[in-house]
Amino acid sequence: MEEKEKRTEIGELGEFGLIDKLTAQFESYQPGTVKGVGDDAAVIKGGGLYTVVSTDLLLEGIHFDLMYTPLKHLGYKAVVVNLSDIYAMNATPGQVTVSIGLSSRFSLEAVEELYAGIKAACDYYKVDLVGGDTASSQQGLVISVTAVGQVAPAKITYRSGAKVGDIICVTGNLGAAYLGLQILEREKQVYLSEPDTQPDLEDQQYIIGRQLKPEARNDMVKYLAKSKVVPTAMIDVSDGLASDLMHICKQSNVGAFVEESGVPIHPEAQQMALKFQLDPITCALSGGEDYELLFTIDPKDLPEVRLLPDIYIMGELTDRDQGIKLHTKGGNIHDIKAQGWRHF
Amino acid sequence: MEEKEKRTEIGELGEFGLIDKLTAQFESYQPGTVKGVGDDAAVIKGGGLYTVVSTDLLLEGIHFDLMYTPLKHLGYKAVVVNLSDIYAMNATPGQVTVSIGLSSRFSLEAVEELYAGIKAACDYYKVDLVGGDTASSQQGLVISVTAVGQVAPAKITYRSGAKVGDIICVTGNLGAAYLGLQILEREKQVYLSEPDTQPDLEDQQYIIGRQLKPEARNDMVKYLAKSKVVPTAMIDVSDGLASDLMHICKQSNVGAFVEESGVPIHPEAQQMALKFQLDPITCALSGGEDYELLFTIDPKDLPEVRLLPDIYIMGELTDRDQGIKLHTKGGNIHDIKAQGWRHF
Repeated sequence: MEEKEKRTEIGELGEFGLIDKLTAQFESYQPGTVKGVGDDAAVIKGGGLYTVVSTDLLLEGIHFDLMYTPLKHLGYKAVVVNLSDIYAMNATPGQVTVSIGLSSRFSLEAVEELYAGIKAACDYYKVDLVGGDTASSQQGLVISVTAVGQVAPAKITYRSGAKVGDIICVTGNLGAAYLGLQILEREKQVYLSEPDTQPDLEDQQYIIGRQLKPEARNDMVKYLAKSKVVPTAMIDVSDGLASDLMHICKQSNVGAFVEESGVPIHPEAQQMALKFQLDPITCALSGGEDYELLFTIDPKDLPEVRLLPDIYIMGELTDRDQGIKLHTKGGNIHDIKAQGWRHF
Repeated sequence: MEEKEKRTEIGELGEFGLIDKLTAQFESYQPGTVKGVGDDAAVIKGGGLYTVVSTDLLLEGIHFDLMYTPLKHLGYKAVVVNLSDIYAMNATPGQVTVSIGLSSRFSLEAVEELYAGIKAACDYYKVDLVGGDTASSQQGLVISVTAVGQVAPAKITYRSGAKVGDIICVTGNLGAAYLGLQILEREKQVYLSEPDTQPDLEDQQYIIGRQLKPEARNDMVKYLAKSKVVPTAMIDVSDGLASDLMHICKQSNVGAFVEESGVPIHPEAQQMALKFQLDPITCALSGGEDYELLFTIDPKDLPEVRLLPDIYIMGELTDRDQGIKLHTKGGNIHDIKAQGWRHF
């Protein structure tokens, strides 16, 4: 970098100084937030609703690579992936807590970048940061986010409510985030071997954006409410369509029949898969990190759902004995195998 | 160790297999737990109460040392320190989520030990494990716990509600956990230099237990409810009495006058402090990790509180301008300085 950036050591502020500094800029959006940061616990008003709680642990070197992940994007994504879990319950998130562990390699300016991303997500999704913890770590960056939301009991969607004959729907498109990661990993390898090379991102802003700055489908929860449709089951596509569909099938005790032609793939993802000599449908099935919503509906709700934007009909649920099958465009029928998340 | 212990690699199970195995043994205590582990989020029933949420991040090498911390104790303590924050709001915890990051050094048997401790805490405090996340880590063990509780709006106790003239109370005794840590650190150094030496724990089971297996004061929340006393402010003693009292004073905009003779110190802690050539009152003020409750009450409630067991009257709140003072047994008056937590 040409310009010398300012570097403030975190030790200069201490824990409480750091928390005060990082959280001072967060304002409150939610009338239900009675007490946010600064006490032993956050306080949230109830009122006949169910409270839903989701949590994720993100570790440097496992879940993210700071070589190509800007800290601001990372902060944004850390919040978004948790909100996505709340939306997948058909609930509305209201609050998040964020805990971070920092090694001495991180300056105050770096942590402020991370929190600028966390704040951008809070502002966009209108959720309140209400607590957390900061600690030093011996190595690397650790981020733990917990999201809290609410939903009327009659509207909640579990993974377990689907029935044989229900229609399988998915929002948006699948596989692009995985291909974005492949591009970033490729450019990292190029950079490591030839540090003077300029990155060749091939104008793949859409695909790379899907990896670095995903959004959660808050719009779908609103659309479904407006059309008075409650999915029979819902999950967010984080591990990959195959793995996440398998969760619904396992917990609902059903099988599934998916039409390849019904699986939405973005044209840029399609093209990039072929460049990487990957099968686009495999990227869509096993890629993960799409943060789209996979849900099933009773056939009677199909006319309503057809009117909603950005929802694709992918197939239907079958008897458990039929397994989980893909009907390819070529007319063959394959088993869908979950690959999903394999950090261990 | 003489016997060869069984070692199962976590990779053999995969993420979902690991979660299933670790959480299968947890039963539900809380009628409010609608949905626990196994969906995108946990679901908790409300009903006119405030929901309180607290979270902690524990990192190996910073917050705990596995050389002298049995994994079962660590799991227990990780839950207890979060429950303590919920009790400090005068609330009752109902649910916890636990996320863990594991390096390849940990076997399934080791993680099961950790979860045995988590389960022991859930069983003792009657809280439900309702979610979490597991991930591999590049180095060391990472534990993130979030606790959720509920409280009637009229009973909630913030750090900010104390007034000049309120009486300062504390439960149990202070400083022992810090001295337990000193013993464990000393024995670690002895072991590192002479591995054949037997540990000399000097029958200090009480002190060491305060460090390795602290309990949260769930009894106090019940006592206070029974005697219909709502403290004006409350905090749990995690960073150290001085630091935690300072939080109340800062947020309530008051000063404090503490009698040294009112600060409860266990006889074993007293004795051990002198052996380490430390001032017992300094250990009590700055030690931390006691997980006792520090609270303030309106003077009119004093007769009721005097009848409750294991509560000590330590002093009273003064004007902010008076600062935070200690009246020593020798008759001197000193400023109380917060040292508290200094991981950075």
